[in-house]
Amino acid sequence: MKNEKKISTPVLRRLPKYYRHLEELSRAGVEKISSKELSKLINVTASQIRQDLNCFGGFGQQGYGYNVESLRDSLAEILGVTKRYTAVIVGAGHLGQALANHNTLSRSGVDLVGLFDISPDVVGIDVAGLTVMNIAQAFHFCSENQVDLAILTLPKGETSTVANMLAEAGVKGFWNFANTELSVSNKSVSIENVYMGDSLMKLCYDISAQDL
Amino acid sequence: MKNEKKISTPVLRRLPKYYRHLEELSRAGVEKISSKELSKLINVTASQIRQDLNCFGGFGQQGYGYNVESLRDSLAEILGVTKRYTAVIVGAGHLGQALANHNTLSRSGVDLVGLFDISPDVVGIDVAGLTVMNIAQAFHFCSENQVDLAILTLPKGETSTVANMLAEAGVKGFWNFANTELSVSNKSVSIENVYMGDSLMKLCYDISAQDL
Repeated sequence: MKNEKKISTPVLRRLPKYYRHLEELSRAGVEKISSKELSKLINVTASQIRQDLNCFGGFGQQGYGYNVESLRDSLAEILGVTKRYTAVIVGAGHLGQALANHNTLSRSGVDLVGLFDISPDVVGIDVAGLTVMNIAQAFHFCSENQVDLAILTLPKGETSTVANMLAEAGVKGFWNFANTELSVSNKSVSIENVYMGDSLMKLCYDISAQDL
Repeated sequence: MKNEKKISTPVLRRLPKYYRHLEELSRAGVEKISSKELSKLINVTASQIRQDLNCFGGFGQQGYGYNVESLRDSLAEILGVTKRYTAVIVGAGHLGQALANHNTLSRSGVDLVGLFDISPDVVGIDVAGLTVMNIAQAFHFCSENQVDLAILTLPKGETSTVANMLAEAGVKGFWNFANTELSVSNKSVSIENVYMGDSLMKLCYDISAQDL
């Protein structure tokens, strides 16, 4: 299925969650699931689930529920997981290396094709089967190889300069771990800022509320 | 200010975002801000912001806006950032080491007091000023030191066993990076599951939508 129209952001934020659970259900051998059962797993109301999934023509059947495998495959296609994207990691410190070795990339349809760093301690070492290159080569490498995505695990101060340079080289999306809102002068690029601290703060709040 | 009642989850999910931006504004020397200006920065409607912040007695003044510093301090107190929490990291691989060295912990009010791993390659090495201990010592260490939080950067299969053991040792909250929904038999603990892949999938979708 081709996604003819843009999906709204709130719906889109829930789709990976549905997909993740359907993947697990499918691996566990579950063949069908109702919106009610899915609701319990996912912590989204059943009516919200039905509404979200109806956006794509509705895959469910009244009284039967959803076919797990076919719903998973449809979501995979909508999310573009079945497409492959190429990515580079800029900043090959601990976080960069952790992401390079993490199965999150491949499960999201992303193939890592290069890693870059500025530090002589890291340039030249092998990470996840790739040799870390000098950041000076990043522009050439990304435009030559038509790299789709850059994963930025750099110090805050350097992130924006690097992202602008890579956008010039044709990189279309940035997954930014610098804990700051990234802005790129090229308006057409896509950006996801990751703020790991937000969920940690929520956790701390929950802990302090345990004592109330 | 003491939070007398539990804040709803959707509001709570937005508070760290407000706090983060107010911290940045304060560092930049901004003294006051209206809900409208804040709305542009944060991508939440001005009326939503006013409604959220009204939950706590309302810190804003009509026609003046919010005092950045005092709003930041109030949010810090509500979120419990002014309180300190102790944490251990279980799984001292790349991701564990990245988090140990990341300022996200200290900025969220969390002090790292121990790291554990099972691998002889990692046990005994120094990370962020601490010596990685053998996982066999984790139970004793956490109950002895009344550790609040455990950050789990372990393989999926081991996460649940370790979390249950640590909950027995008195750990109150789990920040779980195993990309799976963690369940702990002790119902009173708090859990935040981090799914890094979700934002990556959204990014891939956005990239594929650029071409539409």
